[in-house]
Amino acid sequence: MNRIDSVNNPKIKAWAKLSRKKERDASGLFCAEGEHLVKEALAAGIVEVILTLGRIPFDFANVIEVSPQVLSKLSSSVSGTDVIAICRMEEKPVLKKERLLLLDGVQDPGNLGTLIRTAQSFGYDAVYCSRETCDFYNDKVIRSTQGALFHIPVFRIDLEELCRSLQGEGITVIATTLRSACPLKQLKRPAKHALILGNEGSGVSEVLQSLADERVRIEMDGFESLNVAAAGGIMMYELTVQ
Amino acid sequence: MNRIDSVNNPKIKAWAKLSRKKERDASGLFCAEGEHLVKEALAAGIVEVILTLGRIPFDFANVIEVSPQVLSKLSSSVSGTDVIAICRMEEKPVLKKERLLLLDGVQDPGNLGTLIRTAQSFGYDAVYCSRETCDFYNDKVIRSTQGALFHIPVFRIDLEELCRSLQGEGITVIATTLRSACPLKQLKRPAKHALILGNEGSGVSEVLQSLADERVRIEMDGFESLNVAAAGGIMMYELTVQ
Repeated sequence: MNRIDSVNNPKIKAWAKLSRKKERDASGLFCAEGEHLVKEALAAGIVEVILTLGRIPFDFANVIEVSPQVLSKLSSSVSGTDVIAICRMEEKPVLKKERLLLLDGVQDPGNLGTLIRTAQSFGYDAVYCSRETCDFYNDKVIRSTQGALFHIPVFRIDLEELCRSLQGEGITVIATTLRSACPLKQLKRPAKHALILGNEGSGVSEVLQSLADERVRIEMDGFESLNVAAAGGIMMYELTVQ
Repeated sequence: MNRIDSVNNPKIKAWAKLSRKKERDASGLFCAEGEHLVKEALAAGIVEVILTLGRIPFDFANVIEVSPQVLSKLSSSVSGTDVIAICRMEEKPVLKKERLLLLDGVQDPGNLGTLIRTAQSFGYDAVYCSRETCDFYNDKVIRSTQGALFHIPVFRIDLEELCRSLQGEGITVIATTLRSACPLKQLKRPAKHALILGNEGSGVSEVLQSLADERVRIEMDGFESLNVAAAGGIMMYELTVQ
């Protein structure tokens, strides 16, 4: 097993830059921290190299033992970690298009990660993010997906164009909104759907609301305020579980 | 209108300590930041004093104009704020007990806040937190509740004792779990319920699971992993909306 102790090692310096989106995009690499995420990344076959403090609970060829200083230079976690995997971004193929999630400007990394995790748990086929949506290789997003990001195809794309194209393929586009919308329990479930969720403050854009085949609202009692990840969970559950 | 410019003013120094739980508990006060939260706190009648940079969009008697330095000393937000309200913690009465939410060791402030917000939106009557659950006057919790915390009764209590007492009152206790549980869609809705959600890592404790009248699971497709705030949203929606 190789060993790196110095934070000035050129490889370590290069990997430390992966905390920046620009460097991730340029190199096609990102970091996954902690045992759970590293296991999920290994299962997805996207790991380049594992950096660890010494204990190696993983069956993988390319492992480098590093000093605590090196690991903490690469770590984004405040509480520290004992293992980090350097992973390849890989565009996963969309195998079918029965359940799609479209995110229109979701800003909070925790919300984005939670939505990707929920989509994977309810058997969604892909997640499409608008260009204004937060970067999905952000470390907080990855942590919030609990590894779902390594398994479900996720793209950044123009949603207006995408919606028109999906409609051409017979997929029903559903937008969540508060006004002049069908109560969720009364929605007739389409055979194939693309569900659009919007920005935390402003919701789904007017353009996409008009474009949608269905406008749906979650029935509430008074306060009428839901976090987008909670709303997304409710919508995906209702649309997929009989 | 009064004015305070110095961060060394004794009042400012005292209020700055409200970022610590111990000081909040000792004084019975906490901070609400930003226009939306201040409005919700005013609507709830719990505001002691409003500190602002000058513009006063609120109709309230006790307003102090402060310098940007003073406001940033009191603010927990990285992006800054232009208004903060010093508020009183007030124990709100539980008017009825038809829909109750019990949180067993929820650790993440964002999750806790989101769950309180969702409970208020689905007409829950109260939220009971175990002693291990994160402090609900934590600034991140308050932000995530979007002000719901000022309207719904929230308590810290021993959940085991509470469950036994609720069962004595004819309230059905429902625990979320992954094993030997009834699929949510098949659950017969009780007239009155107390829904228990658990810790992010370990779920609802064994003791509470055994104590519960019903054990319920959310039907999933493969990944089998949901954030507790997303799971809570799904459960509360299903239990309350016809």
